Amino acid sequence: MSNIELIDRGRKSWEWANFHMGIINAIVSGNLGNKPLKGLKLGLSLHVTKETSVLVIAALKLGSKVSLCSANPLSVQEDVAAFLSSKGVEVYAWKNETDSEYSDNLNRVLETGPQIITDDGSNLHILAHNKKIQGILGGTEETTSGLTRLRALEDYGKLLYPVIGVNEARTKHLFDNRFGTGQSTVSSIINLTNILIAGKQIVVCGYGHVGKGVTTRLRGMGGIVTVVEVDPIRALEAYMEGYHVKKINEVVDKADIFITCTGQKNVIRNEHFKKMKNGVILANAGHFDNEIEVRKLFSNSSRRYSIKPYLDCLHIYGRKIFLLSSGRVVNLVGSDGNPPEVMAMSFANQLLSIMHIFRYYRRMKKKVYSVPENIDSVVAKLSLKYLGIGIDKLTPLQKKYAKSY
Amino acid sequence: MSNIELIDRGRKSWEWANFHMGIINAIVSGNLGNKPLKGLKLGLSLHVTKETSVLVIAALKLGSKVSLCSANPLSVQEDVAAFLSSKGVEVYAWKNETDSEYSDNLNRVLETGPQIITDDGSNLHILAHNKKIQGILGGTEETTSGLTRLRALEDYGKLLYPVIGVNEARTKHLFDNRFGTGQSTVSSIINLTNILIAGKQIVVCGYGHVGKGVTTRLRGMGGIVTVVEVDPIRALEAYMEGYHVKKINEVVDKADIFITCTGQKNVIRNEHFKKMKNGVILANAGHFDNEIEVRKLFSNSSRRYSIKPYLDCLHIYGRKIFLLSSGRVVNLVGSDGNPPEVMAMSFANQLLSIMHIFRYYRRMKKKVYSVPENIDSVVAKLSLKYLGIGIDKLTPLQKKYAKSY
Amino acid sequence: MSNIELIDRGRKSWEWANFHMGIINAIVSGNLGNKPLKGLKLGLSLHVTKETSVLVIAALKLGSKVSLCSANPLSVQEDVAAFLSSKGVEVYAWKNETDSEYSDNLNRVLETGPQIITDDGSNLHILAHNKKIQGILGGTEETTSGLTRLRALEDYGKLLYPVIGVNEARTKHLFDNRFGTGQSTVSSIINLTNILIAGKQIVVCGYGHVGKGVTTRLRGMGGIVTVVEVDPIRALEAYMEGYHVKKINEVVDKADIFITCTGQKNVIRNEHFKKMKNGVILANAGHFDNEIEVRKLFSNSSRRYSIKPYLDCLHIYGRKIFLLSSGRVVNLVGSDGNPPEVMAMSFANQLLSIMHIFRYYRRMKKKVYSVPENIDSVVAKLSLKYLGIGIDKLTPLQKKYAKSY
Amino acid sequence: MSNIELIDRGRKSWEWANFHMGIINAIVSGNLGNKPLKGLKLGLSLHVTKETSVLVIAALKLGSKVSLCSANPLSVQEDVAAFLSSKGVEVYAWKNETDSEYSDNLNRVLETGPQIITDDGSNLHILAHNKKIQGILGGTEETTSGLTRLRALEDYGKLLYPVIGVNEARTKHLFDNRFGTGQSTVSSIINLTNILIAGKQIVVCGYGHVGKGVTTRLRGMGGIVTVVEVDPIRALEAYMEGYHVKKINEVVDKADIFITCTGQKNVIRNEHFKKMKNGVILANAGHFDNEIEVRKLFSNSSRRYSIKPYLDCLHIYGRKIFLLSSGRVVNLVGSDGNPPEVMAMSFANQLLSIMHIFRYYRRMKKKVYSVPENIDSVVAKLSLKYLGIGIDKLTPLQKKYAKSY
Repeated sequence: MSNIELIDRGRKSWEWANFHMGIINAIVSGNLGNKPLKGLKLGLSLHVTKETSVLVIAALKLGSKVSLCSANPLSVQEDVAAFLSSKGVEVYAWKNETDSEYSDNLNRVLETGPQIITDDGSNLHILAHNKKIQGILGGTEETTSGLTRLRALEDYGKLLYPVIGVNEARTKHLFDNRFGTGQSTVSSIINLTNILIAGKQIVVCGYGHVGKGVTTRLRGMGGIVTVVEVDPIRALEAYMEGYHVKKINEVVDKADIFITCTGQKNVIRNEHFKKMKNGVILANAGHFDNEIEVRKLFSNSSRRYSIKPYLDCLHIYGRKIFLLSSGRVVNLVGSDGNPPEVMAMSFANQLLSIMHIFRYYRRMKKKVYSVPENIDSVVAKLSLKYLGIGIDKLTPLQKKYAKSY
Repeated sequence: MSNIELIDRGRKSWEWANFHMGIINAIVSGNLGNKPLKGLKLGLSLHVTKETSVLVIAALKLGSKVSLCSANPLSVQEDVAAFLSSKGVEVYAWKNETDSEYSDNLNRVLETGPQIITDDGSNLHILAHNKKIQGILGGTEETTSGLTRLRALEDYGKLLYPVIGVNEARTKHLFDNRFGTGQSTVSSIINLTNILIAGKQIVVCGYGHVGKGVTTRLRGMGGIVTVVEVDPIRALEAYMEGYHVKKINEVVDKADIFITCTGQKNVIRNEHFKKMKNGVILANAGHFDNEIEVRKLFSNSSRRYSIKPYLDCLHIYGRKIFLLSSGRVVNLVGSDGNPPEVMAMSFANQLLSIMHIFRYYRRMKKKVYSVPENIDSVVAKLSLKYLGIGIDKLTPLQKKYAKSY
Repeated sequence: MSNIELIDRGRKSWEWANFHMGIINAIVSGNLGNKPLKGLKLGLSLHVTKETSVLVIAALKLGSKVSLCSANPLSVQEDVAAFLSSKGVEVYAWKNETDSEYSDNLNRVLETGPQIITDDGSNLHILAHNKKIQGILGGTEETTSGLTRLRALEDYGKLLYPVIGVNEARTKHLFDNRFGTGQSTVSSIINLTNILIAGKQIVVCGYGHVGKGVTTRLRGMGGIVTVVEVDPIRALEAYMEGYHVKKINEVVDKADIFITCTGQKNVIRNEHFKKMKNGVILANAGHFDNEIEVRKLFSNSSRRYSIKPYLDCLHIYGRKIFLLSSGRVVNLVGSDGNPPEVMAMSFANQLLSIMHIFRYYRRMKKKVYSVPENIDSVVAKLSLKYLGIGIDKLTPLQKKYAKSY
Repeated sequence: MSNIELIDRGRKSWEWANFHMGIINAIVSGNLGNKPLKGLKLGLSLHVTKETSVLVIAALKLGSKVSLCSANPLSVQEDVAAFLSSKGVEVYAWKNETDSEYSDNLNRVLETGPQIITDDGSNLHILAHNKKIQGILGGTEETTSGLTRLRALEDYGKLLYPVIGVNEARTKHLFDNRFGTGQSTVSSIINLTNILIAGKQIVVCGYGHVGKGVTTRLRGMGGIVTVVEVDPIRALEAYMEGYHVKKINEVVDKADIFITCTGQKNVIRNEHFKKMKNGVILANAGHFDNEIEVRKLFSNSSRRYSIKPYLDCLHIYGRKIFLLSSGRVVNLVGSDGNPPEVMAMSFANQLLSIMHIFRYYRRMKKKVYSVPENIDSVVAKLSLKYLGIGIDKLTPLQKKYAKSY
């Protein structure tokens, strides 16, 4: 495809996503007059999808300059990259980057001198810290995994600028992580394998927001789910929702599919590969590609080949194990990623948090902040409005009652 | 039935509940040696069900004296009352109490000089405050509704002793309020009416823990649910779970059944009665009988009669409205209340909180406390053990990873 | 309760059911002028519930005389019996009949000289055949179990009069057996035990219409269901619906609850009792009380006592087994039976089938007939009308297309 | 991609599908010795997917020669076509055929002189009849739509050879049409649009096997479904399953997505386009592209362009309407089609039916036959075996009971 064709297709992809992300448009419209991001250099490390293009174009409209790399070597949609490039964004991202290319691209974004960094997984934040980059006013982070790392930095007293943990907005994690990733993970697995979910024995590791979304949608497709957890209360919740709850070793030889959603490493390990059924399918829905011990899977297999892109067959310990998307986050590799309706909510929090930092960074400390309550609330109300949902209000009598004894 | 027969039946009811509440037994067994409640006078206002009898017997075994009244005039199971009485508990409760009898019984419990008060709804706490009862070391509270009132007392600087808000233990509200009340509310409505839930248009007011449980179970029975909310984020969650979300006035003339789960008053009001369909059914799953404006329903109806106990027909505004359990909490009036498995979790928190207060009250302040983290955790682990559920543990490597960046 | 109070309560029960059974009223209204059952003596063996009272009153209004006994010794609602008696029906039924009383009552109905017999389970039909009762013009049968017996009679060439198998109307078995029995079985089990369904391991034997309904509703309450079947295609259906499908011996020692829905005998046998978990609960949703081998359960137990009515504890093989409703059909013993909305559909088929036989018996043969297609269709259309559901019609073009190639 | 690469990829696709279609392999293994299709010329019109390649290779192994064209201009997977061609199959199919190319390809298959025709939609059968092709011994048909046409032929006395209606095997339509098409339709819609299903208002036209599957999976993804039907009993079933049931005109202006599953033409017509919401999405899950009146949609739109392949935007009547896969069967165009597990069941019926015809055609009449009962039964038993599901058997006592009265 020629570059002009790519750009055109990227523009159409943006239009399509934009059509379903009315909240972002509402925020842009309400702030176009004063261009609140005027003069800002924004550095982004995000999955380069059509939904991200809506955030980027919005930032441009509000006055920002933007440089962009990917948050994952496999999650770049080429048409979107071409389109954003044509709009003046410095794009350092292409499809199927090697690990070193991916790393180079992170560095290039830092070389553009970003003042605010918006990250997904915090590789860019950590690199900025390791390289002691100057001039950064603050940052935001999209994921649970990234926030774990930033909190560790903060605990060690090493955080260099204020960060808003966008993931912790209720209008982010309750919707994007659960309903978005739930749908896109299941549809990606179907996409890559075409197998029937109905009747399959599926182990889901981790029952946080992502795990809850994934299990719900697997059940919705007819799968029989067993949850593996380390947290007692989450385990009890899964149990009462009607899922099997077991230790991984109780089910490792019975499952047809394993899906990791933990934010932890080595959740599915070499010791487990030895016991799995022939033909088992492994997928990861967490941010990093270390939830499944992929390196051991590769190094211990006698043969490895691709059935089709992102569906690999490994001959190991006398059986076939099928690995999806090389163990990288399956919903971004195997399909177009999370739906625009939930990304609108996440990115509205991102956009408003960026505006908040750019305005208030002087009075912010070097710590990880929650999303300001009023931002969460604005996003919720805009979402309702965009979806056409009416809700009631407390009467004055009821407000008084809520304060009485 | 003779009193001896009643006692025998109450004992069997206790045995049945006890069989399904292994956690309570585990706590009793582990503390029988030191009798940690020895010397304590405990005053309880709880629904007098077989599950409550398990808590009461446990408190007796641990050394306490107990006086007991009901938390609701209609929720007393007579056999349980007789059985507890035979065990030396001062029981001031009987079935279908009048409002003034109910009120007298609260007073009688206070007259026994309780040192710790365990309440459900906080009528007993409020009365103790109004009467400025002396000698109370502390208290606990079981419900959302009760805690709202105690927090109001605290905010006005009027709280006279420390209170542990048992409802806020995660092992309480995530399970009892949701899975317990969800099941018991739906089964009570079926019990009282025998109508088919499948295909019915049902409005659920309030999408908190109880509302979530009730909507899930209604859908599980084939009902079509519309959620009415005042909180934007809860409204969005309900929407994404696939429920209709509307203002009450958009659906008031279309619904077959209304269920209130809000902790608010006058949620369904006279203005709504005027627009409802002929034959509509009204039920309340909240603690107090003011969520539906029952007084207006009675005073404005031209005729009112009972079809069977707790199923009343009101002729009002040219139609028939059917009211369940006089607007009182339907799951305790229309059936035996919440299942023993979840009450075990709630009452384990109660029992451990009572032990905590009796041991530490000297260093506690006149405020509303959360359930201590370690109590919540112990209850979770005992529940898993009792249910036979195994969960995994983080490896040392994983623990380290959770702290790294 | 005095008889007058019983009658009054029965009348109110009838009114309540009648309010939710608009189809029956529509049929009565449309035929009141010509009294099509004038001169008919109708003999009924049906569960004496408020829904049945609606059928009986309808038959009276259309000109019939009626005698009535129960279809099960435990399923009589006394107020309904009193009310129908007060209306001139010959009622031979009371609550908790002994087996010999139940049998006597069948005989008494035959002694009234019925011309058409409407049966539920075919005990009355079989008795009429055994006693070679004369003067019977035809009959109808409500259940799968009863039709199996009548077909056997027909196969042996012994059927003495035409019978319409009402169970085989699509507007009967697709709704009553599935949605009706599904709801009432689950709510009865909750009623009798108060246990939490969520998280329980439940074995359902039989995946016919009743089994499908029961599994769906158990899942809707959070239960984990394993289906036991003998038919391969039904087994595959259950598998793809996401249920476990296993041989009974694979799960007999793991289940918390067993429910039989097969129409077969000795489905749960003594060999199974020996392997069950302590505290297991057994319930039968089939017509006859032989699906669980109750006799062996009783004779081999060392102790047997009632915890409350219809919840028995048996000490057997070193464990406790809890039996519901003595192994009799649990949804009629543990609650008020199937909801009026589905009974309206079943009894509309009954009423129209009775009218059909009374009109056409001269030209009918001694065989088991399906419900005439036009009756099924009338019931479907009346149901839609009563429920306020609009459906589209094929356009002339579409009708033509359906016949083209 | 070079042809060698295509063939290699096609081979891997076949291997993948073959791995999940153990039933077909079992049939081949059991018949390899006698080559029951030796000497047969088989003419196929099927979707050229990897699952179809498993059927074709099986037919080759059993001795047949095969010529193949597609059942839909858009549903050809190129790698599969290349692979089958390399195996000696006469393949007349490529991706994105024009209508005239598609038609030419049907003719080419007829020119190879097929003795048995296996069709999906019956275009090949009808063409064979129109051209009065000689030498055809019999045929099979995969779909509801195709069987409607063949039955019309039969009714007009014009059917020229025996046909087995494979769609009518219970092991076909209960699984492929429902669970297969249900999953693949929903995942295709997600694939093509990336929209969130949760919370969407979706109209499903038709509640047959496909409609039931599609509605179940849409609900499983969080969608709110309204069913439109013309059959009263199907409408009642949908209602009791908890779906809205309405006339199309009651919802045409409220829905976000429409999906047709009827086998009828012009189900969504120009009159409906005028009333739809801006941004509505239209998809067809039926065999032919006439369920949505696509011609009128195209001719009455002021602008039409492609957002991405198979996702078109039409400006019409002042709004945007988005059409998926040009109105052709969305699950085969927007994804890889139905999963191998269900296609194994369908194609096992096909393979055994082809063997049946080749053996018994001399004694078969020119009519549409059901799949022989024993074939259905063999497929069911093989499926259970392949899935590792054990089922119980009736005891001798139970067999006798089933025949008793």
